[in-house]
Amino acid sequence: MFITFEGIEGTGKTTQIAKVEKYLTSLGKDVLLTLEPGGSRVGQELRKMLLHVENQDITPQTELFLYLADRAQHVSQIIRPNLAAGKVVLCDRFADSTIVYQGFGRGLDTKVLQQLNDVAVDGLWPDLTILLDIDPEVGLQRANSRNLEENKTNEEGRFEAEHISFHKRIREGYLTWAALNRDRVKVADASASPEKVFEQIKDMLDAEVSS
Amino acid sequence: MFITFEGIEGTGKTTQIAKVEKYLTSLGKDVLLTLEPGGSRVGQELRKMLLHVENQDITPQTELFLYLADRAQHVSQIIRPNLAAGKVVLCDRFADSTIVYQGFGRGLDTKVLQQLNDVAVDGLWPDLTILLDIDPEVGLQRANSRNLEENKTNEEGRFEAEHISFHKRIREGYLTWAALNRDRVKVADASASPEKVFEQIKDMLDAEVSS
Repeated sequence: MFITFEGIEGTGKTTQIAKVEKYLTSLGKDVLLTLEPGGSRVGQELRKMLLHVENQDITPQTELFLYLADRAQHVSQIIRPNLAAGKVVLCDRFADSTIVYQGFGRGLDTKVLQQLNDVAVDGLWPDLTILLDIDPEVGLQRANSRNLEENKTNEEGRFEAEHISFHKRIREGYLTWAALNRDRVKVADASASPEKVFEQIKDMLDAEVSS
Repeated sequence: MFITFEGIEGTGKTTQIAKVEKYLTSLGKDVLLTLEPGGSRVGQELRKMLLHVENQDITPQTELFLYLADRAQHVSQIIRPNLAAGKVVLCDRFADSTIVYQGFGRGLDTKVLQQLNDVAVDGLWPDLTILLDIDPEVGLQRANSRNLEENKTNEEGRFEAEHISFHKRIREGYLTWAALNRDRVKVADASASPEKVFEQIKDMLDAEVSS
């Protein structure tokens, strides 16, 4: 079972993925937690390149291809072998991020993006994608106070540095994309408490596990 | 005017490009010399990643997307602005390398590759592409003795390390691709002396300059 998690900054993705891991482990599943960008060795170098604020001069096309490179390597080296070994793979961001950030966010053609994703994932699409949805103003406030708490130098802040209108486009893009792919993409309201958010996710997991 | 140079290892590309630069400068042209991968700042990081022997585990898809990322950044930051400033741009390898190495070499679909190239070059195709053609056995011998002479540690040897059959496929791929694009891609016999090779190239340049 391959489950991916999507959403803008500050939705509490990391917290929820940890809860999902704990829950599935309690059901006796062998779980692998991974992420994009940066799930493979080469991907870690790409992650630094993509998220470093110094690289604001990266063009939308370059950004797109770097994410796709990261994904192709991740699918081939990490995701596919672990699924083949019988694990449940939980991935923080995957192909839908490309459609939403590069398509709805940067204005690239979503049909072309879907073709490019097809080359990168090589037939491997998630069984379930959980979209954590939140108002970007609330999400960014959370992300910023988290960065302050963790004393982050903001080196990984290329996305947080984008204007609020960008994050609003991303949220709308996610909701549109989820509606177009409602068999696979389920939306959770991430504005509630972490416990209430997980209750929604647990229902989605139970439905998937029993199907 | 945008001129690209293609060919397998050991064809004497570097020598010929230097001669072309000298010749065009003598005609009063303002010339920019650049290369792929590595023509932009971000591209230099990608070049290291792509050519380092340690990265033999990069999948064909990952490799493809890294080259495309390098190209998109190079076109946008270096090639297009310099052409707009009236310069002649000479580029050591460009989009045809992707078709030949990833398509004919690694077995990816050349039609898909051409679509991906279209995204990366964003409408900017060379006016003239010069393919330096040589028997791979001769070319590799040249490349290896050059590496020994220059005391190279072989860190940038990921391609030289490929089996001879790979280089033969690449040569055949180049010749096929040149035949399919004969209005743009001109083939020079690179087995002759550097002076004789340049004579052939000079004719191609004169035809292009006067057209």
